[in-house]
Amino acid sequence: MFERAVIIGVGLIGGSLALALKQRGLVREVVGVSRSPDTLAEAVRLGVIDIGGTRLEQAHVDSADLIFIATPLGAFPAVFEQLAALTLAADTLITDGGSAKQHVIDAARAAFGDALPGGFVPGHPIAGKELSGVTAADADLYVDHRVILTPVDSSDARAVKRVEAMWEAVGACVECMTPAFHDEVFAATSHLPHLLAYLLVDLLNEHPELGNVFRYTAGGFRDFTRIASSDPTMWRDIALYNHAAVAKWLRHYRAELDRMICAVEARDADMLYQLFDGAKKARDQHIVNRKEGS
Amino acid sequence: MFERAVIIGVGLIGGSLALALKQRGLVREVVGVSRSPDTLAEAVRLGVIDIGGTRLEQAHVDSADLIFIATPLGAFPAVFEQLAALTLAADTLITDGGSAKQHVIDAARAAFGDALPGGFVPGHPIAGKELSGVTAADADLYVDHRVILTPVDSSDARAVKRVEAMWEAVGACVECMTPAFHDEVFAATSHLPHLLAYLLVDLLNEHPELGNVFRYTAGGFRDFTRIASSDPTMWRDIALYNHAAVAKWLRHYRAELDRMICAVEARDADMLYQLFDGAKKARDQHIVNRKEGS
Repeated sequence: MFERAVIIGVGLIGGSLALALKQRGLVREVVGVSRSPDTLAEAVRLGVIDIGGTRLEQAHVDSADLIFIATPLGAFPAVFEQLAALTLAADTLITDGGSAKQHVIDAARAAFGDALPGGFVPGHPIAGKELSGVTAADADLYVDHRVILTPVDSSDARAVKRVEAMWEAVGACVECMTPAFHDEVFAATSHLPHLLAYLLVDLLNEHPELGNVFRYTAGGFRDFTRIASSDPTMWRDIALYNHAAVAKWLRHYRAELDRMICAVEARDADMLYQLFDGAKKARDQHIVNRKEGS
Repeated sequence: MFERAVIIGVGLIGGSLALALKQRGLVREVVGVSRSPDTLAEAVRLGVIDIGGTRLEQAHVDSADLIFIATPLGAFPAVFEQLAALTLAADTLITDGGSAKQHVIDAARAAFGDALPGGFVPGHPIAGKELSGVTAADADLYVDHRVILTPVDSSDARAVKRVEAMWEAVGACVECMTPAFHDEVFAATSHLPHLLAYLLVDLLNEHPELGNVFRYTAGGFRDFTRIASSDPTMWRDIALYNHAAVAKWLRHYRAELDRMICAVEARDADMLYQLFDGAKKARDQHIVNRKEGS
């Protein structure tokens, strides 16, 4: 499928795609780019990449047929500026794993101007773990997971098809939507719960009224807060670069929280029962009883 | 250890204690009391109880040496009133699985007056699953889990020791605290996250801007909301009967949420990073790296 893939940002997301392509025989050579020489050495040792460099100029992107950007969102503007200064082949695919698509597209436009490469197809694999870094890379991370593509006007139809085919070849299910709808959907379903989980741990951590209360928590708390063990740099960037949609859904959630506080203080048994019962039924129907989403 | 145990409320919590005692040979006969004849029939079929009745009067509590109350909190006043009208042996242990200890103690005082039985030792096993009902009963539910006892002035020291010994015999670790501290700690660490999880599912369920967004969720969302599949009657009662502490911690959480909304809207990178990083470190230290709490 590919001769040379350049993976920019060799962590969980980039490393897992590299491994998935290599282990399935879909790429001849994978070049890793990371600011950290230790990460590159570890990635070579683990067989995630074949060679690596700390600077994009060393990666010979002119002979790459796939460029995958998997850095934190804050690094995208600099990555696109460096790419725009280099020569790319006309059919090089450029895609990414960024969780805030409008930000990624804005960063690309700022670097390339109106002449975005036809091979640029923004994307977002809906997979992750609370573990991060190349040591957590997993060739099967994307199997049975969804990948969202948000093509722009300049994206070649053929490039979109090739990016789709790549994700399907590593086991994922691909769906296209607009960047704006993507950013709303994932603000609501992913960014919001991550921030809520971080908040709960922060609230209870060494709270003066409670001491170390984490010792009294059980499996429910551990699962609820699992995503609060996620990479803080990645999540800071998501909150910063999808801030409009994130703030909107945080406000929606706060309005619901206000309703619940009123219901608890008023001891409104019917309202509480209906809310809990409706939520349980929705979750049991849509989350528990399905195969995908593991 | 026991000749006859009477389990009032034969669901996950009561059924699991019954099974745990029976399978370890710690009780000769278990009598179940439930309003539902179907539940009783199923409990007998599963070997959770030996016999059952729909009315407490049928359970011959005068010859019981253990009475365990594991109904939803709303049923405790009626259960205590019925117990107070019956004759109990002087050394009968009366304990329970209620998640709001002050409510349980208030209900007992309302029924027994100032002459609370010396065998009354309120308790709360910190174990649960999103599954409920007797079919989810598990003889090992309490193994390596914590059980909180909140003895009152009238509790015999010997009765406290026997209840402790019972929980330890089924694998749990026992700790004593005041009812007021218990209700604060579990409002913060258990009741609050349950309500937050129900709220998120309720907010997103058929939201007009998003359609069925649950299809875009992955493992993080599933784990965060697992506790929103819990029994709605049980959780309505916890919100109602621990309402002061629950409302207080909901308000604390809302104050944190307001701070986060400000930080996101101000794009305050430092504040967000520090919050996420501190929460991740606290969780990794206190939740991930420990044995207990599964």
